[in-house]
Parts: sequence; C-alpha cells; structure tokens
Amino acid sequence: VSNNNKKMVKEITSMDVDFAQWYTDIVKKADLAAYSNVKGFMIIRPYGYAMWELMQGALDKMFKDLGHENICMPMLIPESLLNKEKEHVEGFAPEVAWVTFGGSEKLEERFCIRPTSETLFCDHFKDVVHSWRDLPLLYNQWVSVVRWEKTTRPFLRTREFLWQEGHTLHATKEEAETETIQMLETYAKFCKDYLAIPVVQGRKTDKEKFAGAEATYTIEALMHDGKALQSGTSHYFGDGFSRAFDVTFADKENKLSYPHQTSWGCTTRLIGAVIMTHGDDNGLVIPPHIAPTQVMIVPVAQHKPGVLEKAEEVLNTLKGCCRVKMDASDNSPGWKFAEYEMKGVPIRLELGPRDIENGVCILSRRDTAEKITVELEKLPEIIPALLQEIHENLYNRALERRISMTYTATNMEELKEIAATKPGFIRAMWCGEEECELKLKEEADISSRCMPFEDQEQVSETCVCCGKPAKKLVYWGKAY
Amino acid sequence: VSNNNKKMVKEITSMDVDFAQWYTDIVKKADLAAYSNVKGFMIIRPYGYAMWELMQGALDKMFKDLGHENICMPMLIPESLLNKEKEHVEGFAPEVAWVTFGGSEKLEERFCIRPTSETLFCDHFKDVVHSWRDLPLLYNQWVSVVRWEKTTRPFLRTREFLWQEGHTLHATKEEAETETIQMLETYAKFCKDYLAIPVVQGRKTDKEKFAGAEATYTIEALMHDGKALQSGTSHYFGDGFSRAFDVTFADKENKLSYPHQTSWGCTTRLIGAVIMTHGDDNGLVIPPHIAPTQVMIVPVAQHKPGVLEKAEEVLNTLKGCCRVKMDASDNSPGWKFAEYEMKGVPIRLELGPRDIENGVCILSRRDTAEKITVELEKLPEIIPALLQEIHENLYNRALERRISMTYTATNMEELKEIAATKPGFIRAMWCGEEECELKLKEEADISSRCMPFEDQEQVSETCVCCGKPAKKLVYWGKAY
Repeated sequence: VSNNNKKMVKEITSMDVDFAQWYTDIVKKADLAAYSNVKGFMIIRPYGYAMWELMQGALDKMFKDLGHENICMPMLIPESLLNKEKEHVEGFAPEVAWVTFGGSEKLEERFCIRPTSETLFCDHFKDVVHSWRDLPLLYNQWVSVVRWEKTTRPFLRTREFLWQEGHTLHATKEEAETETIQMLETYAKFCKDYLAIPVVQGRKTDKEKFAGAEATYTIEALMHDGKALQSGTSHYFGDGFSRAFDVTFADKENKLSYPHQTSWGCTTRLIGAVIMTHGDDNGLVIPPHIAPTQVMIVPVAQHKPGVLEKAEEVLNTLKGCCRVKMDASDNSPGWKFAEYEMKGVPIRLELGPRDIENGVCILSRRDTAEKITVELEKLPEIIPALLQEIHENLYNRALERRISMTYTATNMEELKEIAATKPGFIRAMWCGEEECELKLKEEADISSRCMPFEDQEQVSETCVCCGKPAKKLVYWGKAY
Repeated sequence: VSNNNKKMVKEITSMDVDFAQWYTDIVKKADLAAYSNVKGFMIIRPYGYAMWELMQGALDKMFKDLGHENICMPMLIPESLLNKEKEHVEGFAPEVAWVTFGGSEKLEERFCIRPTSETLFCDHFKDVVHSWRDLPLLYNQWVSVVRWEKTTRPFLRTREFLWQEGHTLHATKEEAETETIQMLETYAKFCKDYLAIPVVQGRKTDKEKFAGAEATYTIEALMHDGKALQSGTSHYFGDGFSRAFDVTFADKENKLSYPHQTSWGCTTRLIGAVIMTHGDDNGLVIPPHIAPTQVMIVPVAQHKPGVLEKAEEVLNTLKGCCRVKMDASDNSPGWKFAEYEMKGVPIRLELGPRDIENGVCILSRRDTAEKITVELEKLPEIIPALLQEIHENLYNRALERRISMTYTATNMEELKEIAATKPGFIRAMWCGEEECELKLKEEADISSRCMPFEDQEQVSETCVCCGKPAKKLVYWGKAY
C-alpha cells in the first residue's frame, strides 16, 4: 500500500487562536472553494457548490410560490445606461470591471460587467410595461456579478460572486413597500428554516443604504467571533429609477404614472455565514437541510464477512428518506470519522460486525458529538426526526449565543468599553445624524447594522454619541 | 371596457413567405426573448427562461446520474492563461471581450470574459490532481459565456449565451474517449426524450473541430427550412491540454503521467432548435416535457354560474399530473385560443356550461389541432398519456421530415443541383482533404456537418468533389 493510499487527517487552526485562519482552513480543507489564478475570484468546488444548489433550490421555490418568475438579463451594461441614475452610478462606478475591446476591435462605448442590474431591468421594463394590467412585474435572476473589491476573502467578499437579484415593479407605493418587507421576511425565514441562522431584521440608516434606494432593509447575523454579517438586503426605490429611465404606465383612470420599484438580493456569502455560525474547531458543521450528505455510513471492520453487504442494504433503505452516502474506501475508520467531522456531515452512521449481530448501528451527531445506538429497522423513522432535531439545536444554540453577545450601552463611555472588550451587537440610541455614525466608526470602530423592527425599546432618551434627543434604537457592531 | 382590456391576436409571418422573419416573430411574440440595449445580447424572458430551466433540470439530472459534479469557475481568464495552449488561443482570441480596467485603475494584465473554460479548468486540475486515485474528475458548470460574434440572432448566435460545459480528466486515453462518446449520446438521448428532436450523431472533420481538440463529435439537427443546426458537441483532447498546463498524476506504478481530457457543451441555442423543428404558422409548438404550461384551461361562457368553479376544480385535480394553468381573464375565448396556440401550449382544455352538464370537456392538441371530448373523471389518466403521445408524434414527424429531406449525391453535378434546389442534408463521399471541403463551400455553399456513426454506407467509391478514393461518408448542408 503506497503513501497515496491514506490522506492524513487535515489539521485546522483553533478558532480561539486565529479566527481568520480557522475560517480559511475550513474553506480549503473541507473542499468548499479554492483560490483561482485571478486575484479575488474563487473557484467554488463541488462540495461548496452542492451546498449552494440546495440553498438556491429552496430560495427559488419560495420566490416562485410568491409569484416571481425567473429571467436572464445581459452580463454587460453600456456606460451610458449605468450613468442614467445619478446616485446609483456614483455608488457603483468606482468598483466595476470595464470591457473596452471586442476581439481586436476597440469598442465605441465601454461596457461594465454588471455589479447589479437595476439599470438593465429598468431599460427592459420601459419596453414591456404599458398599462396597470401589466403590473406587478415580479422578476428574479440567478447570475454572477463583479465588483472590483480591494480586499477579498472566499465567500465573504469576492470580486465575482453568485447571487440572485429580484426586481419588481408595482402600480403603487404601498404595494412596492409591502413587497420589500415581504422579501426581507422571506430571507429571514430561509435563514431560520434552512441555514439554522437567527437574524435581526431591520432598516439601514441612510448612510448604509443601497446607491439609489429610498430605503434599504437588511438581515444581520452574528458570527462566532462577534462580528456581524449582512446576509441579505431588500430595497425600496420609490419611483426614482422609473423617472430616470422613463418607465410609465397608464393607470386605471388612464393617467400616465410612474411605477414603484423594489430589488432584493442574497449571495454565496451565505455559505460564509454558515461556516462562521455553526463551525467549530473540528471543522464545518452543516445544517441538515442544506447538507449535500446528511448521513455518512462508515462500515467498521469492513473486511469481515457480511459487513459491506449489510451496510449497502442500509444505504439503499435510507436513500428514500435522506441524502446518504457510504465510504467503503480502504482508509481507516478513524480517518473517515475525522474527515466527515471536518466536512460537517450532520450524522455519521457506524456499522460493525457486532452491531450487525445485534441488529443495531451507532448514530453519531456532528453538532453534539453524542452517540446513540439505534435498531436498524427504526432508521427510516429516526433519521429524519434526528436531522430536524439537529437543525433546531443548531438554531437554538446560535440564537442563545447571539442573545448572550448582545449588549446595551446608554452612553459613550459604556459603548466604547463594550466595543473594545466584548465582541457582539451593541444596542444604543441614535439621534439620526450621520455625523454620529461617523464618530462611532472613528472612536469605537463600529458601524450601524440596522434599526431593528422588533426590540425598538427606548433604552435611553438621548443619542449615545451626541446626547441630543434619540430617535431610534440601533444595533451597532463590527462587521464583515 | 377600455382598449387596454383586449390585446389583439399577434400576427406571425408565414414561414413559407420569410422563414427568418417567422422565427423572429415567434421569439418576440411568444415572449421568449427580447433585444437588449447591448448589441448581440438578448434578454431571456420568463417564458423562454422557464423552458431553459426545464431543459437544464433534465440535463443536470442525466449528468449527475453519470457521476458528474457541478462546480463554478471564475468568469474571467488572464490573457497569459488563455495563451497557454496555442491552437486554443488562436481559435478564441479573435472573439473574446477584454476587461482592461477595474474601477478607474488600468489593469496590469488584461482579462477576457470566458468564451469557454478549458484553460481555467486545467489550471485548477493542476492543483487538485496528484494520484490515479484522484481520477477521474467529472466536472460540469452552468454559466454564461461571451463570444464577440459579428452577426447575431436570438438563441441561435448571441454574443452572450447560457450553456453548460463539462470538463473531465481521466487516467487513460480509452476512458476519456468513452466519456466523450457517452456524453454525445447523452445529448442525443436528451434531444429525443425531451425536445422530440431527432439528431445525426457523428464526428466533425478536422476543419470543423474545436480549437485544441484531437476530435470533436457533434449532434446535428435539421430545421424546418432544411438548414442544419449543430446542437451539442463533445470533444476529446488527448493529453494536449495536460501537457500545456503541466497537469500530471502518479499512476498505479507510481510513474508520472499526463491525464486525458474531454469537454462537452450545449447551449440556449437548443431553444432555437425547438422553435425551428416544431413551430408552424400559428406559432410555437413546445414538446410537452419542456413546456412550462402543458395544459391551459380555457373556460367558455365563464360568466355563467358554475363554470369558473368547475374549471377551478379541474385545475386543482390536474395539478398532480401535469403543469397546468387556467386563463380566467376577461379576454374572449377566441383570443385565448390564438394566444396559447401561438405560445405552443401542448393541450388546450375547453370547458363550457354544456360540457359541465355532460360531465365532459374538450381537449385540443396543439400538434394536430385535433379535438377530442373527454369525461372529466378520466382526465388524470388521459392527460399524461396524451402528452406522451404528442411528444412521440412531434418526434416522428420531425424524423420523417428529416428522412424526406436527406439526399444522396455521387458526383459534383448532382450535389450542386441538390444544394441549389433541395434544402436538407446531402450524403456524399469524401476523400478526407480540407481542400475539397473548401471547394464545396465555395461552389455549393455547403459545409461538412459530420461523418455519421450510423449510416456509414459507401454510396460511391470516389470523393464527390475531387474524384480520388473516398474515405468517409459525410453529411453536408447549409447550417446556422
């Protein structure tokens, strides 16, 4: 047997030693992504992509159940089109990639690779919307976009990332606002039901909102290291883009009106959120509903007669109730245990000669390391229930951690002390002025994450920064 | 009731009058695609995209069942990487889009938007393949690519198109060759089973093969106008790319070897193939397995009591057995009949007060215009069978047409006469020299489509062009 026969167990830096290195180790060693030859662009490897496909499938169904249709817009935007909405172009122009040549021919007008597609959608809306009967238009697309970021990290911030962008057009302001909130809630529900990630829903301050939006809403998740991760956003545009792109419709009174617009998106960044919410020092922990493999069967003493046959039988029985695989390679059981722990498979199923004699097997949970002995006959009943139990445990654990890492500050001294010593969210009152946001960034290195919908408690009467009357409770924090 | 209330029935140019205009009319009026602001880039509209999603779902399952995994590579290729394989870069460099600026900063090296991703995959293979145990690698990705074409038409030839590209790496030449043929056969099966399109499978001549391939295989379909459409290709690369990119592995004898490679792709062009294979002067005809709506319920005299309720009941019953919708809008039944005929919905279900009294409805087939009266109770049994019957009828009709439009020529005079007067495939012998291919292009305006696997009959002993001894039977034709 050659050396190639056995891979060594891959070592992961402890998250307490170096959280950033721990993250990178997991990304690489769990085969989620690889660095490419192009700076800031990653290769999503099969295991990572399989997670994304499961996430995409669940989200896509939620969108379609709400009446949205998929569409596909061009990848390139002419410079003149990008320039049509002033705030939008100012926000995005500094970070787009420009195409200037087609083959050997210099182009008359530059095109940028889409950083987002509001301008393209508006240009199309102009052609397809005429009457109130054409509204609402509920569109979505699954594509990749490019933003020329300076500092990049796999999944969290890359120059190209995969995402979906929803773009909808409505006859009234109220309808568009309802859509904006509905999609934010859809993201929050997805995070809870599929990723086992609790999020804080709220509105962004004007400083943090999307370029060209009237209002931006966000879901914010708290990572293991106490930093926030913006995990999905939903924007209300009013009729600003409609006016800029001359999109009009004849309303029920046959009067020409400007429709109201929304857009909303979430990205492959959510894979980063999963890693940093659930992972531990043994590696990745994947929530069951998005785990490419939910149950890994590891035969023990597999050379003994009957073991592989029985394991195969269990594999085939379980195929109907979960995503299951078996590793019958000649690596040792110990190697396999470490490997699938590192890859975050929710349940390991061990089966050896003595187990078979007794008609049982051992199930080992990735989330708690707990082992239970289960009768083989009961597996099809127990596995789905156990997967759901693991899901709920992961969610509750993350929620408890977030609660325990959420602090309240009523004055600047308190706030700075917390920001300097306690990673997590800080709840504090704000007067509504951008100046105070800038000051908190400078003096405490935190930014406003959102003005939460729930939990709008008046924790003090004055702005934590300037002491003027407070308008809103804000969640503050360091963020990715 | 305002004018906006009723759209007029959309008119389509007859295909005998102007085939190209007929095609464009269908693309636009059946809401499959729209032109965008960027020359040569199209917008795939929801109805067209829904067809693509169904095609993608079926193909993706076929690929995965054969052991392939999805992955996602960067959209950009550094110029130095594209340059590594000589023939490949010569084939593609003239038609790529170049990114030269990131934001306001001029890039040190240009990047092209991928026209295809062999170079990126090889660069990754180099990092992940070490031992024979790592092989085969069976990868695929669903992305869009850009080729700066001069003349474009929606779906058939666009500067950006959606596709899948499979890239596989094998320990031996034999394995790679088997994969190449297996994937070609997968495409042919997909065309038959889902698109109801018969194809000729064969090998491309060296002149027509992919830049950098040792051998290219193709499936060729014959359109309504007698022109061929290359509908999918599968390439065998030998170890040429492995050598150019220094991809090596330790074989079972621990000797360093170059792996053998394949790639294979098919694109949104297949939507064009569907239009031009099955469509008629009333519009699109969608094969049932990829029809977004398989059955459209049109209530007749829907204001009469009980009609809409019963139609709704039928709708709910049928949801379990097919993709069904109901149009209860206030457009007239006549308008609806024309609209869904134009949109190619396989079955229209008409239901009026008298039908309801009799416990029946009328099913109208899009492919034959035949109407049958069916008991409501039997619908869940009859509809799936009828959809399959329609699928088979479409396939057989297309096959018969192809057979009737396939001619044989044994000398140049005969060949020119056929090429000038009879649209379709021409079977004729070839000596194997590129010179003769060029001459046939010049004198008869036809190109070699493929050397078919089946039907390799020796129709004459000499090359149809030069009279030298013949090596292969070739299918020739005009092509998109």
